[in-house]
Amino acid sequence: MNIVDIINKKRLGNELSYEEINYFVMEYINKNIEDYQISSLLMAICLNGMSEEEIFNLTEVMLNSGEKIDLSTIPGIKVDKHSTGGVGDKTTLILLPLIASCGVIAPKMSGRGLGFTGGTIDKLESIPGFKTNLTEEEFINTVKKVGCSIVSQTGNLVPADKKLYALRDVTGTVESLPLIASSIMSKKLASGADKIVIDLKVGNGALMKNLSDAKKLASIMVSIGKKYNKETVCLLTDMNQPLGNAIGNSLEVKEAIDVLNNKGPKDIRSLIIVLGTIMTSMGLGISFEEANKLVLNNLENGKAFEKFKEMISEQGGDLEKLEVSDTVVSIKSKTTGFIKKIHTNELGEIVRKLGGGRYKKEDNIDPKVGMVLSVKQGDYILEDEEIVKVYVGNKDYLVNEILDCFEIDNTSGQIEPLVYELIK
Amino acid sequence: MNIVDIINKKRLGNELSYEEINYFVMEYINKNIEDYQISSLLMAICLNGMSEEEIFNLTEVMLNSGEKIDLSTIPGIKVDKHSTGGVGDKTTLILLPLIASCGVIAPKMSGRGLGFTGGTIDKLESIPGFKTNLTEEEFINTVKKVGCSIVSQTGNLVPADKKLYALRDVTGTVESLPLIASSIMSKKLASGADKIVIDLKVGNGALMKNLSDAKKLASIMVSIGKKYNKETVCLLTDMNQPLGNAIGNSLEVKEAIDVLNNKGPKDIRSLIIVLGTIMTSMGLGISFEEANKLVLNNLENGKAFEKFKEMISEQGGDLEKLEVSDTVVSIKSKTTGFIKKIHTNELGEIVRKLGGGRYKKEDNIDPKVGMVLSVKQGDYILEDEEIVKVYVGNKDYLVNEILDCFEIDNTSGQIEPLVYELIK
Repeated sequence: MNIVDIINKKRLGNELSYEEINYFVMEYINKNIEDYQISSLLMAICLNGMSEEEIFNLTEVMLNSGEKIDLSTIPGIKVDKHSTGGVGDKTTLILLPLIASCGVIAPKMSGRGLGFTGGTIDKLESIPGFKTNLTEEEFINTVKKVGCSIVSQTGNLVPADKKLYALRDVTGTVESLPLIASSIMSKKLASGADKIVIDLKVGNGALMKNLSDAKKLASIMVSIGKKYNKETVCLLTDMNQPLGNAIGNSLEVKEAIDVLNNKGPKDIRSLIIVLGTIMTSMGLGISFEEANKLVLNNLENGKAFEKFKEMISEQGGDLEKLEVSDTVVSIKSKTTGFIKKIHTNELGEIVRKLGGGRYKKEDNIDPKVGMVLSVKQGDYILEDEEIVKVYVGNKDYLVNEILDCFEIDNTSGQIEPLVYELIK
Repeated sequence: MNIVDIINKKRLGNELSYEEINYFVMEYINKNIEDYQISSLLMAICLNGMSEEEIFNLTEVMLNSGEKIDLSTIPGIKVDKHSTGGVGDKTTLILLPLIASCGVIAPKMSGRGLGFTGGTIDKLESIPGFKTNLTEEEFINTVKKVGCSIVSQTGNLVPADKKLYALRDVTGTVESLPLIASSIMSKKLASGADKIVIDLKVGNGALMKNLSDAKKLASIMVSIGKKYNKETVCLLTDMNQPLGNAIGNSLEVKEAIDVLNNKGPKDIRSLIIVLGTIMTSMGLGISFEEANKLVLNNLENGKAFEKFKEMISEQGGDLEKLEVSDTVVSIKSKTTGFIKKIHTNELGEIVRKLGGGRYKKEDNIDPKVGMVLSVKQGDYILEDEEIVKVYVGNKDYLVNEILDCFEIDNTSGQIEPLVYELIK
């Protein structure tokens, strides 16, 4: 077998065999194929696509490229959750303790921020003392004791994805449904849960910009899950504005705590209730109605927040020490009108510039910086009314750059629903 | 400007600006962009194509990436010739002295073998003593004195193409009309001739496998030539069987000498007469009829061969010392029937395996090996009749592999014309 023949085959739009896919992935990991050959192949995959069979095979090969977590010693049905990422997405922080408080077993490996989107692990690390790098044994023990745990990846899971993702990021080959589907699903399958819920974000603050591509991606991921006998559901949700009001690590943890205390912004609260209901229903094998009742009760009676505190303290975190920046600047609107559009990814970029995200892997994050929006899409704002509060650290920012992220107009424009569709 | 944005733009099928094309080519040469980024972009170009404007700009940027030869001190109209390469293609060796004997000024830079196709420079180097690496000054003086000269590239012409071509070769991105057109034309333009004739090979022994792609490529190259006020014509010719009977370096020089002596196989002889007529007509500004008469005369009266000997001796070569292998094996057909199809590229590969071509840049070529076909497409052959003579060196070969290159059948099948079309 020869990598140039494989590239040419895909360039001509033909289907690669299992052997060919296995060859290019494994020989790439083993450094027998060059980056410049794989990037050419990845672009051919972006443009010529892959059949369902090829996507299954790519997922299988990636899954088998490394270790797999064995969660079988934890009794009960384990439910995993993945979000494709967006701006202000603190869902996992809230959702896991919430469903664990309802009795669902919820082990979760999360990632760090990528580009303009934040990462759950970075958010959790803004809580002083919180350990995200547990060993597999510590992770399993925490889940057994608390019912949930959130860690950064343990063990050498799907090394193929790590290498391919780093290359895709710098070669313009990120946006490919087969590559995204196999990347997400190989990691979810390697993480060992029994059931998988994917929150697929769609909009100007997400990787997927349009709904029809997102639906296709969801269908592919659901079929991959089925192939492995793991019930998989995808919820397509809106990311045309930040989720909740807070963007930035500590600020998002604080907002998560608000929601766990049955408060917080309406959109993030609604999403939590929908996802919590789905996951509780799947994890406990009960109806949506029963699950929904449990979820609402535990937000109200404080059990969800208790579970959150239990998980944080079990992993060494001290919530009392959570801090946000003291330097808070109120930015005011220059005009009167409806908030018609929010340039979500650009707000994410601005928080990254403030120090809340990384440009290189080695960069340190300042957890205390970020912003809290005073308005959402469709709101009416007056001239000189506050549009956003900025929490500033030692990096500068441009006021007009922030104001430009909010399009203000005479009409409110179309507002997308928070939840588009459930695909299962 | 940012290479990832440029890749994404081309992946989405958009047109790159002059500035973007200049950026990626020059920053690549200057090592500020990685191979794996360029290969991804090249694949996007392969699959999404380029507009005429983009192709012009890419050619211009490549042309300006290095030195240009100045032939203005040589009086008269300089005519250059390029072949896209095939198996047994010894055209240049014959054509240049032939038209020079007719009074045309014919300076020519040629390349080495690539893949299964041989290169003019390798063929000439089978003549002991022949120097192909003249300086620009020596090259110009030879052309002034003899009327023609064939050298390997002098100076640092189109370094962008050298780097891009090496990458395309190993990343499955060779077959792209915009990339082929800009590669060929930037080199021809940098070589400084006034008029350009391109022999575009089509068929199973050529880069271009089908006629409609070849026509498109021809039209693009002709328009690029026009843009630079250099009359450019493309002749589309058949490469579904080797050109002439000989494949291998010394063997091809011997066959070239036969043609120069008004003998040799019909197909190569016909092609030489057509191309010689076109180039003589363009170089001297005379009609095809007049040019054709000159060409036929000079093949018959020995002037073409005299000019060949003059060029060889001027560049230090000693024709008396030209040698082919003593070990000649006659391979006989196992069946009776018509030669329906010849797997031309595979015959080229076999000669490469015999030692007649390179696998790596550093490989040494054995000029004495190769093969001479005893049959051409459409011929009727009897069982046990000779199908090919193999000239063997110190590398082994497989008889059945050679026989498999000839498909023998009850009917002769379709035979393509030698010349398909002239595009100008």
